Amino acid sequence: MTPLLEFLLRQGDNTLVLGHRMSEWCGIAPALEEDIALTNTALDLIGQTQLWLAYAAEVEDAGRSANDLAFLRDPYDFRNLLMLEAPNADFGRTLMRQFLFDAFQVPWLTALSGSSDPRIAEIAAKSVKEALYHLDRSSGTVIALGDGTEESQSRMQAALDYLWPYTGEMFADDATDAAMADTGIAPMPSAMQSAWQVKTEEVLAKACLTRPDSSFAQSGGRTGRRHTEHLGHMLATMQTLQRSYPGAVW
Amino acid sequence: MTPLLEFLLRQGDNTLVLGHRMSEWCGIAPALEEDIALTNTALDLIGQTQLWLAYAAEVEDAGRSANDLAFLRDPYDFRNLLMLEAPNADFGRTLMRQFLFDAFQVPWLTALSGSSDPRIAEIAAKSVKEALYHLDRSSGTVIALGDGTEESQSRMQAALDYLWPYTGEMFADDATDAAMADTGIAPMPSAMQSAWQVKTEEVLAKACLTRPDSSFAQSGGRTGRRHTEHLGHMLATMQTLQRSYPGAVW
Repeated sequence: MTPLLEFLLRQGDNTLVLGHRMSEWCGIAPALEEDIALTNTALDLIGQTQLWLAYAAEVEDAGRSANDLAFLRDPYDFRNLLMLEAPNADFGRTLMRQFLFDAFQVPWLTALSGSSDPRIAEIAAKSVKEALYHLDRSSGTVIALGDGTEESQSRMQAALDYLWPYTGEMFADDATDAAMADTGIAPMPSAMQSAWQVKTEEVLAKACLTRPDSSFAQSGGRTGRRHTEHLGHMLATMQTLQRSYPGAVW
Repeated sequence: MTPLLEFLLRQGDNTLVLGHRMSEWCGIAPALEEDIALTNTALDLIGQTQLWLAYAAEVEDAGRSANDLAFLRDPYDFRNLLMLEAPNADFGRTLMRQFLFDAFQVPWLTALSGSSDPRIAEIAAKSVKEALYHLDRSSGTVIALGDGTEESQSRMQAALDYLWPYTGEMFADDATDAAMADTGIAPMPSAMQSAWQVKTEEVLAKACLTRPDSSFAQSGGRTGRRHTEHLGHMLATMQTLQRSYPGAVW
């Protein structure tokens, strides 16, 4: 696999997996307003996925479409961050994850908007507008629930403690990233870390939440080395229609 | 579909769906002893499924195997009781369901051992030995947890309250049952109700649990009229390998 294809799959798989997780809230969110907001977020993320995976399919040039990449690949072919495949658990953890990812995506997509690859610059410029809005909502919710009742505060702290070891993977550069940086296609992910830290510290402080001091980081998702069991179960559900009726269209 | 085929699918789908649910505990049960016991129960039920669905495939005579029936049918083709497709929830609800089903299966399979169809009589005679053992274990666990701590008692009562409206479906005779009764293949399911009531009342009394007085009964699973959303999710996971790699064998 070329570094560019690997890079594009990472972008598209992140938004696909998180988008599907968000879609799982459709119809069962704790309030109608949230139900619509979460579903709209899911739609934004799936829309971004179509752009990333369509480009990935072109670069691969093997006759596969964006749909094929989304619905006919196996878990070990996915390149998403492990954090994004974790189950939603409760509303608090879902929004905490969204916030931790949005706080990365905003500087990341901003930087990608200046990519030497015009197609990537275009996708990023479109996506960053949505990411800014997602970050605005998720940070507001993290603050409201963290600085809320005793129950909501303890749930948000538990969510943060659970997710924290998965955040380091966002900044773990590898050879693919180096190849992207060398050609001006993308910055190194580690270059986003200080902006992410400033933002998360600001929001967590307002939310009265304690940032875990562990520096242990889970890894393997974005490199495809390993995924958690949750991805396999999620894909079984997500892919069941195309697996049961190959080639089915609306 | 002939009444005999419908009848056989009902038997095989019951044990398949419950067997899969039990297998979900493998590796995560609350104690090693229980983990092994639940997994053995799952294996018994899947073994019974092979016998029922192999016969169903022969009766259907359409070139499908027992594997095809298990792994390539869609949710609306399943004929299992709705109670059996409900999520496991906690250990208490899993064992309460097992008990409520075992208390039906024992008199049912005993009666089927005298079926006018020798193949059915043979499968039932083999299965009832396992069902007796399952009933012994599940009733013992229901009593131990019901007559246990405040926490375990309240969970078992909640499990009973949740499952109760699904028990009536076991005794809801229809035209398929009438056709089986007319030919001496099987008794009417409603003929099992008094034996089931005696057994459940005895065990629930020992377990210090209160039998709900509602007589409302969910239905639709064994007739294929409707299933809950849980079956689709369960089949997506259960069937993912055969759906992804059609015809795969070990």
